[in-house]
Amino acid sequence: MIRFDSDYIEGAHESILKRLSETNNEQLPGYGTDHHTETAKAYIRDLCGVDADVHFMVGGTQANMTIIASMLRTHQGVIAPDSGHIAGHETGAIESVGHKVLEIENSDGKINAEQVRSFAEGHWNDPTHEHMPQPKMVYISQPTESGTLYSRQELEDLREICTENNLYLMVDGARLGYALASRDNDTSIRDLASLCDVFYIGGTKVGALFGEAIVITNDNIKPDFRYIMKQKGGLLAKGRLLGIQFEVLFENGLYFEISKHAIEMAHRLAEAFEKKAIEMYAPASTNQIFPILTDTQIDVLQSKYAFHVWEEIDTARKAIRLCTSWSTTSDDVDALISDIEKL
Amino acid sequence: MIRFDSDYIEGAHESILKRLSETNNEQLPGYGTDHHTETAKAYIRDLCGVDADVHFMVGGTQANMTIIASMLRTHQGVIAPDSGHIAGHETGAIESVGHKVLEIENSDGKINAEQVRSFAEGHWNDPTHEHMPQPKMVYISQPTESGTLYSRQELEDLREICTENNLYLMVDGARLGYALASRDNDTSIRDLASLCDVFYIGGTKVGALFGEAIVITNDNIKPDFRYIMKQKGGLLAKGRLLGIQFEVLFENGLYFEISKHAIEMAHRLAEAFEKKAIEMYAPASTNQIFPILTDTQIDVLQSKYAFHVWEEIDTARKAIRLCTSWSTTSDDVDALISDIEKL
Amino acid sequence: MIRFDSDYIEGAHESILKRLSETNNEQLPGYGTDHHTETAKAYIRDLCGVDADVHFMVGGTQANMTIIASMLRTHQGVIAPDSGHIAGHETGAIESVGHKVLEIENSDGKINAEQVRSFAEGHWNDPTHEHMPQPKMVYISQPTESGTLYSRQELEDLREICTENNLYLMVDGARLGYALASRDNDTSIRDLASLCDVFYIGGTKVGALFGEAIVITNDNIKPDFRYIMKQKGGLLAKGRLLGIQFEVLFENGLYFEISKHAIEMAHRLAEAFEKKAIEMYAPASTNQIFPILTDTQIDVLQSKYAFHVWEEIDTARKAIRLCTSWSTTSDDVDALISDIEKL
Amino acid sequence: MIRFDSDYIEGAHESILKRLSETNNEQLPGYGTDHHTETAKAYIRDLCGVDADVHFMVGGTQANMTIIASMLRTHQGVIAPDSGHIAGHETGAIESVGHKVLEIENSDGKINAEQVRSFAEGHWNDPTHEHMPQPKMVYISQPTESGTLYSRQELEDLREICTENNLYLMVDGARLGYALASRDNDTSIRDLASLCDVFYIGGTKVGALFGEAIVITNDNIKPDFRYIMKQKGGLLAKGRLLGIQFEVLFENGLYFEISKHAIEMAHRLAEAFEKKAIEMYAPASTNQIFPILTDTQIDVLQSKYAFHVWEEIDTARKAIRLCTSWSTTSDDVDALISDIEKL
Repeated sequence: MIRFDSDYIEGAHESILKRLSETNNEQLPGYGTDHHTETAKAYIRDLCGVDADVHFMVGGTQANMTIIASMLRTHQGVIAPDSGHIAGHETGAIESVGHKVLEIENSDGKINAEQVRSFAEGHWNDPTHEHMPQPKMVYISQPTESGTLYSRQELEDLREICTENNLYLMVDGARLGYALASRDNDTSIRDLASLCDVFYIGGTKVGALFGEAIVITNDNIKPDFRYIMKQKGGLLAKGRLLGIQFEVLFENGLYFEISKHAIEMAHRLAEAFEKKAIEMYAPASTNQIFPILTDTQIDVLQSKYAFHVWEEIDTARKAIRLCTSWSTTSDDVDALISDIEKL
Repeated sequence: MIRFDSDYIEGAHESILKRLSETNNEQLPGYGTDHHTETAKAYIRDLCGVDADVHFMVGGTQANMTIIASMLRTHQGVIAPDSGHIAGHETGAIESVGHKVLEIENSDGKINAEQVRSFAEGHWNDPTHEHMPQPKMVYISQPTESGTLYSRQELEDLREICTENNLYLMVDGARLGYALASRDNDTSIRDLASLCDVFYIGGTKVGALFGEAIVITNDNIKPDFRYIMKQKGGLLAKGRLLGIQFEVLFENGLYFEISKHAIEMAHRLAEAFEKKAIEMYAPASTNQIFPILTDTQIDVLQSKYAFHVWEEIDTARKAIRLCTSWSTTSDDVDALISDIEKL
Repeated sequence: MIRFDSDYIEGAHESILKRLSETNNEQLPGYGTDHHTETAKAYIRDLCGVDADVHFMVGGTQANMTIIASMLRTHQGVIAPDSGHIAGHETGAIESVGHKVLEIENSDGKINAEQVRSFAEGHWNDPTHEHMPQPKMVYISQPTESGTLYSRQELEDLREICTENNLYLMVDGARLGYALASRDNDTSIRDLASLCDVFYIGGTKVGALFGEAIVITNDNIKPDFRYIMKQKGGLLAKGRLLGIQFEVLFENGLYFEISKHAIEMAHRLAEAFEKKAIEMYAPASTNQIFPILTDTQIDVLQSKYAFHVWEEIDTARKAIRLCTSWSTTSDDVDALISDIEKL
Repeated sequence: MIRFDSDYIEGAHESILKRLSETNNEQLPGYGTDHHTETAKAYIRDLCGVDADVHFMVGGTQANMTIIASMLRTHQGVIAPDSGHIAGHETGAIESVGHKVLEIENSDGKINAEQVRSFAEGHWNDPTHEHMPQPKMVYISQPTESGTLYSRQELEDLREICTENNLYLMVDGARLGYALASRDNDTSIRDLASLCDVFYIGGTKVGALFGEAIVITNDNIKPDFRYIMKQKGGLLAKGRLLGIQFEVLFENGLYFEISKHAIEMAHRLAEAFEKKAIEMYAPASTNQIFPILTDTQIDVLQSKYAFHVWEEIDTARKAIRLCTSWSTTSDDVDALISDIEKL
């Protein structure tokens, strides 16, 4: 079985494992106060071009929950696309820390500034708005859960609406590397840092064993973040493990290099489907591609490849999701292309 | 600087790093559904001698919060020694999931059955008990935060009182290896499994990069634990990392072997203090020892060694904490002994 | 200004005020342990024909939050129509106690058994269901926020689906009296008691100063409810105030009598609109009616009457909501009818 | 049975019931937006001599929970005496909204500035303070649960320490009337308003059917309080009921007059015990007195009077609590004095 079902099917990039071994016997203080962590933070601050606070956490649900718990008062909610990870795939983590996810209908995984404006104005214009959660934050993902991208213009529009409506803007970048490496992308990490109040750079799906780098640029929400990391179970005792991994990923551009590889692999697969005139469920901008196949075609591919059946399109066809990653090999892609051609 | 300040100052036992490398390119499903995780669970179930549910989480605060959130209804609280980790060192994690920690005064880090009985009866006999959190669970640590041990008899007494008062018994085993390896210990892991409703076997402080193995033996509290792990941000995407580590620790007794080493190192330090007739703050049963030193003695040692100043004893003296671990070398212990002798 | 904007614009039925005065100097124990409260509970148990636990709380949001916090584990959510009070008008009270409201699209304020079945099966059939809140409860209102009614058959169907899918069924009866008095109603309070796990009988909107009578029929969820009432700030010190009010409402059928009056008043208004061939937004079964008016018509009526503008229908027309209640006078209805005729 | 067991054993002062009847048929908007509520707020603002936000809630637990949830971020805790109402008698309401109550040992129900300073400095000086809840607020009661009073000087000292340590100061005034009327009191309501960030004036125990008037003087914590009242189930639909009651209490000084009566009744009882040389558990400054009696004496009094047995003093004696209130009659006090004389 060749797996294209997710971008976390293997361990870590070998450079990371190598460095973890090399540094294993260093005796270091805990909870992210070691020099590797400091160095990694400096790399990321430099990359972002702003005086941000950087924190490392183990996973995405943990990061989302901690960021949101840190930023909102009890009566405030977070606007998100109904396809957003916090809306549907975190077992109510946001609600479990007391906040409503205010869902807006997505288009290809995205929401736009006009929708946010309308929601916020709808709240404030309602004379009974005190009877509803107050929208205080917008959560989006780059790339989205559908593998699509926000353009720089779309992000600027969202920023403007957020500022006008006193909303924070947060970007979940669990797969950020794959956005940055996409041929369709026009938003740099510096753009993100200047447009968001907080975002994170995903490691788990981009070559690390685990880890997300949270970048807080808004001074108002910087204080006391480490208290809340600890409270939510997210302050790793051997914080060095996160520091070392992000040090490796960002000291010489490894993060960007391996992201680019994944995008190339995905691009080759997308081309193969295109040659067969197979329709896509969403634009294939990043490392996730969503071809629409017949049940027979799905059966054929499932005999050799692991992937997710994403959504029923009509009685005869379903969208599937194929994921490439930093670890995808050309051989595996060649094999799959050859089988696509035979469909 | 030679560090004796904690048992998580180095990475992991080399066997663990080696296995992580060897298995790095295996393509495996996520969230702990891989075969390494299954194998590790089987080892632990076998060791415990009961048909337990086993789950792996990254850290102790996360494990405590998730277990307690899973077991208690909203109006119920957890009895704990006032020195317990959940009482003082988790930034209110338990309160953040809605439950009061009902603190009982500790003696050398421990509470006894009589105290629990008295607390529980005090609750139920109070005609206004509905105005107080209902005690539903007892949380203790083995070994305790003071490095002491519950005897088998003490645990049996606690179990009996818990059963009589409809209380769950939970044991935080963040340093469990060091309890099991102690010369003063008379409680096996099978004893624990038969006496508790839930406990966990700490990896972070006993040779793993990170990880705690939660063992749930009470059938009533088994259902749906994975939902709650996910909700609390504790279901690791690459769950294999936990499975592989515990596989290595338990396939050939490595966990017990490296625990024993730490205990020997601590024992040698304790003997050195004893020879100098230096008093201990608490019995030196495990890998944490708490000699009481003068400020001058502390200054001398701090020039070469890292350790925690634990508590002021009187105007001239303080208890310090020295930690050994699986990674403590004989050379470092020799160096410290030589300096102890010169105090 | 004559107010038709809600059913809580006046104080209480005069019988209630009279009884509060008569009993004012009785010296009684607090927190709902007095004899009036016991008597009121007995009346309600008798009315329901089951051995239910009855509790009185001050308001609806408080009742909803307390009931749901009492019944669900941390990872469980409550299915509700997207028009439900807990979904949109309680400032995230349910999320603030940790649970996601799982919204289903309403038709005239209602959801049906097939929708619930589909949602529940969708959850359990999804291989990643542990990554989503577990549906454990269905919340509906009788009458609904749109003034419509569930038929007995619809409730039986929901009960059946709930039982099949291990879901609790809860009915918010903030306006229950107006449902029971409706000409379109075929569900008795005994039916409700036998079909739900928990429901409540609203007093605030049906003649009381305040108060909701919670009826718990499922033995599994009876224990410890008073603890949770206290924790959520809902155990009234002078609990007698609730007991006395419900004693008055149920000792001689006052609750049903004044509900019937409100329905008659609403019916007369509905007929007046019908005569003018004015369309309704939802069937006018209870004390809330939703005529669709032009902006000009709205302006005319707003000069003399208070009511809510409910929803924009098209560029020229909006639905408004008119509420009658136990306190609506024939004179006020006559005045409004006369003005409707002139529209 | 003559009841001295609490100050909420009767309904309301007759002036309140009378006014509720007189205003019963007024048609008013809901949720505290009516003119009576506005008038009551103006009376209280005037009394306090500051531009405060005033809100009315039904009960004390609800008020405490709502105020604290409104003011603290998730990682912050509230310092309170271990005898404080939030520490022991609200079924963990504060923990249920996520915050730890940081208990300090009380003396006669009070804590002092030095204790608070020591606690706060202990937190900030601990290098691991991020692993503990951050103290952000001090909660005290005036009068205390033991019926004692803070002097103006003590409150000024607490204010100073709070300001120095960036802590809010909150005063629970569930029985505030009885403090203000005490012969031992030197703190006016204007003093309180200038020294606290928030406090409340209790109505439930001082002549109202129910109700607490929350006074927020710190501009930083004023925004959005009504959202949180709604979320916590504390925004009364017929808010007029609170407004009207506080209007009556404060339009002509009724609140102070009836408080004074209760104090006189308590003073007469205290004198009777004094004449018999019966020791007091705590100074008898307010409407709660705590004589220490033998078991035989308790048995004798219990045959005719209801009161609480408060605490065991030694094997032969217990402190009891007797409460007077606005509703205590001279006849009942005479009867009890006569029986005290016979002890």
